[in-house]
Amino acid sequence: MQQRVLASQLAERAGETVRLQGWVHRRRRLASVTFVVLRDRSGLAQVVIRDPETVELVEKLGEETVVEVVGKALANPQAPGGVEVVDPTLTPLTEPAETPPIELWRPSVNAALPTLLDNAPTTLRHPKLKAGFEIASAAVQGFRATLSGLDFTEINTPKLVESATESGANVFAVDYFGKPAYLAQSPQFYKQHLVGVFERVFEVGPVFRAEPHNTGRHLAEYVSLDAELGFVQDHCEVMDVCEQVVVGMVSAVRERAAAAVELLGVELPSTGGGKIPVVDFTEVLRMVGAPPDEPDLAPAHERAIGEWAQAEHGSDFVFVEGYPTANRAFYTHPRPEEPRWSRSFDLIFRGVELVSGAQRLHRYEDYVAVLRERGLPLESYASYIDAFRFGIPPHGGFAFGLERFVSRLTGAENIREVTLFPRDMQRLSP
Amino acid sequence: MQQRVLASQLAERAGETVRLQGWVHRRRRLASVTFVVLRDRSGLAQVVIRDPETVELVEKLGEETVVEVVGKALANPQAPGGVEVVDPTLTPLTEPAETPPIELWRPSVNAALPTLLDNAPTTLRHPKLKAGFEIASAAVQGFRATLSGLDFTEINTPKLVESATESGANVFAVDYFGKPAYLAQSPQFYKQHLVGVFERVFEVGPVFRAEPHNTGRHLAEYVSLDAELGFVQDHCEVMDVCEQVVVGMVSAVRERAAAAVELLGVELPSTGGGKIPVVDFTEVLRMVGAPPDEPDLAPAHERAIGEWAQAEHGSDFVFVEGYPTANRAFYTHPRPEEPRWSRSFDLIFRGVELVSGAQRLHRYEDYVAVLRERGLPLESYASYIDAFRFGIPPHGGFAFGLERFVSRLTGAENIREVTLFPRDMQRLSP
Repeated sequence: MQQRVLASQLAERAGETVRLQGWVHRRRRLASVTFVVLRDRSGLAQVVIRDPETVELVEKLGEETVVEVVGKALANPQAPGGVEVVDPTLTPLTEPAETPPIELWRPSVNAALPTLLDNAPTTLRHPKLKAGFEIASAAVQGFRATLSGLDFTEINTPKLVESATESGANVFAVDYFGKPAYLAQSPQFYKQHLVGVFERVFEVGPVFRAEPHNTGRHLAEYVSLDAELGFVQDHCEVMDVCEQVVVGMVSAVRERAAAAVELLGVELPSTGGGKIPVVDFTEVLRMVGAPPDEPDLAPAHERAIGEWAQAEHGSDFVFVEGYPTANRAFYTHPRPEEPRWSRSFDLIFRGVELVSGAQRLHRYEDYVAVLRERGLPLESYASYIDAFRFGIPPHGGFAFGLERFVSRLTGAENIREVTLFPRDMQRLSP
Repeated sequence: MQQRVLASQLAERAGETVRLQGWVHRRRRLASVTFVVLRDRSGLAQVVIRDPETVELVEKLGEETVVEVVGKALANPQAPGGVEVVDPTLTPLTEPAETPPIELWRPSVNAALPTLLDNAPTTLRHPKLKAGFEIASAAVQGFRATLSGLDFTEINTPKLVESATESGANVFAVDYFGKPAYLAQSPQFYKQHLVGVFERVFEVGPVFRAEPHNTGRHLAEYVSLDAELGFVQDHCEVMDVCEQVVVGMVSAVRERAAAAVELLGVELPSTGGGKIPVVDFTEVLRMVGAPPDEPDLAPAHERAIGEWAQAEHGSDFVFVEGYPTANRAFYTHPRPEEPRWSRSFDLIFRGVELVSGAQRLHRYEDYVAVLRERGLPLESYASYIDAFRFGIPPHGGFAFGLERFVSRLTGAENIREVTLFPRDMQRLSP
């Protein structure tokens, strides 16, 4: 049988007989001619039908019916892509499709978010909704490629865990063969332990947060991009890897998801031609005129430092380092000379926090001390901290959510728009 | 500061002063000299110490202490790799390590599996245990690279699901904001729906099986490698992609995990120079002299057909196609001309089933019919089958477990040996 040609390849086939397969994206019946726009994974193709029997057949096949089209590819400057298919034989590959929940052929998505999410298996076909996931797929490839190139090993750590240790709250409980278990909120402890095995590790996998928040930024399940590396001097090497990763992800999106970027009109971010600027936490407070004892940056502060980075460095990114130790996770490494501040950082992207990272504690005694200091029960953390008795090198890492990255990149108003099948307090299906 | 040199790079640095970092893998004190074997992510390096103060320091630092060594790289044909480090300055980067649960420097792993698993964060450092995960990491890269090259889109589907539909049994229940939810046993339904969006999709992610079996082959959580593609004629195109994927994974292991392959003495499999042979299910029964109405292949049958493939085709792999429809998942596509048999296949690797796949049903009415026929409640499957009203092309796919692939490749006796932190009826930590 003749090889299938994709819509995007049609331009090279003018003059040939071609076989296309795809969905009836749109039908337009005029007096003397009917147009079918065929959609496949590569894009759209225009099919011109004059034969009355085929016109009648098309009448019966609603939008989204899957069809095969065999016809002649003909150059036509008016057709999208410059080539259309004429004199087609059209064969349905499925039953006529029912009317989809939204009109997928419209250039814009005209439906409320709940409608889109309730009918996700079908609504995701809209080119503008699909584009976000093409960007996500490319971004993940960039994440992995960058870290693999830096000699990181990919790991898969368990999502079923014995105790709800990292935060102690907001965990989902599981009935595990009659015993209690929890869904992992992050691979944090595992990736630190595995620095002792592989030195440099990364993981792409789901994490679970039972946060009772119903905002446009929260998901109960998301894809966490995690990296951790050993033999660092301090958090600066971690920031350096983080920068390479984010730059690599943007490059991968540019190269592998060009059509999606164009369709959504995404302006890809830049570091302004140099290294991402780094500003100390206290300096940010000073710059924005906030009191010097603020425990964290407020959204307004992040916006302000984002604007500064854009104005001063032409960079969409800025690192803030040295957050107050008391306000970061207990495993964060303090500055030895001034332990009130930590060797931590956030990467601010266009005025909003994107990535969090830090050097971590690596000495067993330091863990014992900090758990005592924070009033956390040593027993609960025994299996985590015990591993540090056997030589874990100085290390650090970072993590961020894939959906967050994509939503900030595409400017999605709600993170659910860039999540295939989002999970939240109200939503567990489809 | 001088750049760190890895053990594997030492051979190129003879004559230079080098800075190494790693773990004290082994110490050997002779009368006039002490040897330290240093381990880093790339391998082992020999350090020769004559200076009495450094010898004394090494006495105090147990195996697994993390150290930095600055010394002169000197060619010595007797040293591993042909170059050793002499006259070193040795600086501990951690406290002296406690005695590890197993002697990591011994060439073989001499400990019972429970000991290894209980102390996984440390025991995984043994080069022979670690090697299995280097192979796994390379194999996953091969899986993704092959499918990306075939224009598949990577997806991330939710692991928290509303109903326990696919098998109805052996699911883990989750307390989801006070409502019942379950952990996904596979991304099967989602990947089929997403064929309607992306045509070709794959996913690498955890799946959860609450199977009350305590064997060397069962895990309660494992990494599933899933692929699904649309616009197929039948299952043959699915088998073709499956073959490319498996061959691509073996190539990736050969290229990216060569040291691990050598260390474990893995004999990488071959297809015998041609395509993987395909045998019909009924033909296998005939060849092994089994009754023609057997519902499935017994392990002995799989072994026999594996031997046949090796003897006749020099292939470590053989496809068996056309399993009885009644014995496969309800969404399996029957042979239209003979619906007792299905358009399904298994890939047998060295006499054991590795991959399962099939063409799936794609017409809504076919789903309604098969659910009725099998006495399954339509309501439970409503959101799954409803999507087929809107034009899902003929499609098929396959799935297999990463740990199973690696264990069959390395010849691990127990699948837990190639799982970083296995989960089973008894084990939920570390």
